[in-house]
Amino acid sequence: MGTSTNIVWHESSVTKEEREHQKNHKSAVLWFTGLSGSGKSTLSVALERALYNLGIHTCRLDGDNVRNGLNKNLGFDPDDRKENIRRIGEVSKLMVDAGLLTLTAFISPYQEDRNQVRAILEENEFIEIYVKCSLDTCEKRDPKGLYKKARAGEIKSFTGIDAPYEKPVSPEITVDTENYSLEKTVQVIIQYLRDKKYLTKIT
Amino acid sequence: MGTSTNIVWHESSVTKEEREHQKNHKSAVLWFTGLSGSGKSTLSVALERALYNLGIHTCRLDGDNVRNGLNKNLGFDPDDRKENIRRIGEVSKLMVDAGLLTLTAFISPYQEDRNQVRAILEENEFIEIYVKCSLDTCEKRDPKGLYKKARAGEIKSFTGIDAPYEKPVSPEITVDTENYSLEKTVQVIIQYLRDKKYLTKIT
Repeated sequence: MGTSTNIVWHESSVTKEEREHQKNHKSAVLWFTGLSGSGKSTLSVALERALYNLGIHTCRLDGDNVRNGLNKNLGFDPDDRKENIRRIGEVSKLMVDAGLLTLTAFISPYQEDRNQVRAILEENEFIEIYVKCSLDTCEKRDPKGLYKKARAGEIKSFTGIDAPYEKPVSPEITVDTENYSLEKTVQVIIQYLRDKKYLTKIT
Repeated sequence: MGTSTNIVWHESSVTKEEREHQKNHKSAVLWFTGLSGSGKSTLSVALERALYNLGIHTCRLDGDNVRNGLNKNLGFDPDDRKENIRRIGEVSKLMVDAGLLTLTAFISPYQEDRNQVRAILEENEFIEIYVKCSLDTCEKRDPKGLYKKARAGEIKSFTGIDAPYEKPVSPEITVDTENYSLEKTVQVIIQYLRDKKYLTKIT
């Protein structure tokens, strides 16, 4: 028994590199961006399952677990949309520091907001994935009936209808969900991660 | 090549249970609460190091990585303090869902705020740890010189000086950093986690 007033035993913080070593792969954010109905959520769910099967430690942020929790006090006006993405970016950074391959699935329509997330991360920690699909096809899919409501004026400032979507200027990956299957798009992303050594056993 | 307009292949989301299984231990929040200078941060750093050495997957949230990032747009008035703890609670929940044993080190002076974090988590996911140390000792330690500033009136609403600290009503663990060494307090918490099967290999 002693007093901790004069602590001599002081361990250092666990580093991101140690966490990556523990998990045997690199950590980064896979930032999906695209129109509503483009397939971000479906793709991120399928990709996460595939990564889990490969033994990768992941987490996934989407509207369901963020808009109902951390960001439930935010709406959809420009300031709140900006703050929404800022918070998601900061949480992603914490997840990356925790050693996780982090998947985020949000429309995130503004290039500037996505750039700000990129800016708070290290190089190679931010992988922007453009989920490409025409507005026409997204609107035909309309999985949540949101386009119908937006066209009827029941939802205001809906991305692609009466609010802009800014395509990524230079995304790390583009996947075309209009012309390629889910299996194929998952494969494209996993191949990218393999090629760039994100999934490599760290020695 | 096909179109994803009619997706039949749809994998289900990875569950918390699957993540815990992957990591071979349970996930939960270890929520440290106590006065400034009580030893929350020191203790959480040392505990995380000990857990890492045991092969446990952890993450740690403290003022350094939260107040400078996610919560940098919050101040110290009552509303902002409440929102600060609310956001930390929500991020902790995301971390727990990701399968991590999550350590948080914040004064978190109000019982109601801590209870609200407990409320958004499942039973057994919230472990409240009271880091007990007299104000007198905390003020003598004054590692950041904050008590001196508070006494001089340079900092307003400082917990323990001119803002209240509400001791936990029924914390899962109490550690006394005034009378016990850092090694001992780390051991007490690890023993609790062992006894309650948080560190048990999941089969």
